[in-house]
Amino acid sequence: MILVSNDDGVDARGLLNLIEMVRPYGDVYVVAPERGQSGMSHSISLLEPIRTKKIKQTKELSIVSVPGTPVDCVKLAINQLLPRKADLMVSGINHGSNSAISVIYSGTMGAAIEASLYGIPAIGFSVLDHSTNADFSLALKHGPRIIEDVLQNGLPNQVCLNVNFPVVSEKDFKGFKVCKQTTGVWKEEFEKRIDPYGGEYYWLTGNFHNFEPTNEESDEWALVNNYASVVPVKIDFTEYNTVTELKKRIK
Amino acid sequence: MILVSNDDGVDARGLLNLIEMVRPYGDVYVVAPERGQSGMSHSISLLEPIRTKKIKQTKELSIVSVPGTPVDCVKLAINQLLPRKADLMVSGINHGSNSAISVIYSGTMGAAIEASLYGIPAIGFSVLDHSTNADFSLALKHGPRIIEDVLQNGLPNQVCLNVNFPVVSEKDFKGFKVCKQTTGVWKEEFEKRIDPYGGEYYWLTGNFHNFEPTNEESDEWALVNNYASVVPVKIDFTEYNTVTELKKRIK
Repeated sequence: MILVSNDDGVDARGLLNLIEMVRPYGDVYVVAPERGQSGMSHSISLLEPIRTKKIKQTKELSIVSVPGTPVDCVKLAINQLLPRKADLMVSGINHGSNSAISVIYSGTMGAAIEASLYGIPAIGFSVLDHSTNADFSLALKHGPRIIEDVLQNGLPNQVCLNVNFPVVSEKDFKGFKVCKQTTGVWKEEFEKRIDPYGGEYYWLTGNFHNFEPTNEESDEWALVNNYASVVPVKIDFTEYNTVTELKKRIK
Repeated sequence: MILVSNDDGVDARGLLNLIEMVRPYGDVYVVAPERGQSGMSHSISLLEPIRTKKIKQTKELSIVSVPGTPVDCVKLAINQLLPRKADLMVSGINHGSNSAISVIYSGTMGAAIEASLYGIPAIGFSVLDHSTNADFSLALKHGPRIIEDVLQNGLPNQVCLNVNFPVVSEKDFKGFKVCKQTTGVWKEEFEKRIDPYGGEYYWLTGNFHNFEPTNEESDEWALVNNYASVVPVKIDFTEYNTVTELKKRIK
């Protein structure tokens, strides 16, 4: 059984494409947000109750929508809805990049990470195209290579994969590159506007500043050079070098 | 100048206590969510515009509320509102623990991590008591020790601290312990209810399962043994051992 979720919502083309991509590998159970949840990161609903809506239920394909976050969907699926433990979890296909530090803001990766915490091998798929009519052909053609590898070999406990596809033609595509998360930061430029009633508001916009643009082991480098990036992800926020340093000072 | 935020909202007692704790160290600029944002993790508002509300503005203390997430608050503060770069950012004091894997769901730590990404030394403070009338006396007495250390010595670039205080008396408190994030997972038990109109809904509840309960270097061990835990945090989700392994298979 394969669990599928995303952050663009149950109606997103990326999700429908991902469902078709994984159907050859087993029964599919989709639990996805009712509405778009881009930028929702690893958030969970603590202040609101969670509801579910059955959209489709057959042996081969079940679809449930949840008016909550991607991580809500995965928690509910694993702890409540799925008839047995999933063999694989896939998230996406996200309309837009989740490389570098974007992984921490991403609802798509939030869902994949959550599944991995429960010991389910998980893969988040994204394409570097935000538009609703993004071209998923490269992901659909080459994504199964990653799915088959994970089904065959598994992943270490609590590890998932962050897979991003560049926007290039099949001819120019250079294949997969296993890499590290690029270090950097988004520099925001808030766009200030005035609403029709005279109130000020801001839109969040910005650009990514890459701290290591020439590092060939980084996912940004891979994507700029027409590779699909594959970053194994594990949640240990600890900065171990600093543990050693601080122990000398703080007791 | 010290930037202050939290995830329990601009009216939370934990925030008001934290403001008083840091005032001796410089001018204070508070940018905090209008309402409670527990569990909002690192989420950002991409689908909604962001507004601000000035609550107080003097040289020594400014307070702005934002109907958005903790990370929205920090991004807006750093990129738009603050007259100059903050010397320190503090988040909290959170009503409830942010130890172990809870760090990834935490809005308090989302805010501290975001500030650290911009190169601002940041500290998230939490006490292991969810109640609105939580006892902050231990944090207020000993928190300044950490603030002074960070003001004096700084932190490595893009590193922040996750500081949690146990619920014990001053007499039983054993001091600080620098440690690592405990590995484990929250096992959820969704509580199913029926609303007055016959609709089903769930509340998210659960218990933390500790994978390393006897590891004296872990933050859970520290807290159970009456220490305050100090975990240096850096966002690199890459699982480097798996990079090496996967490179053999995926090209």
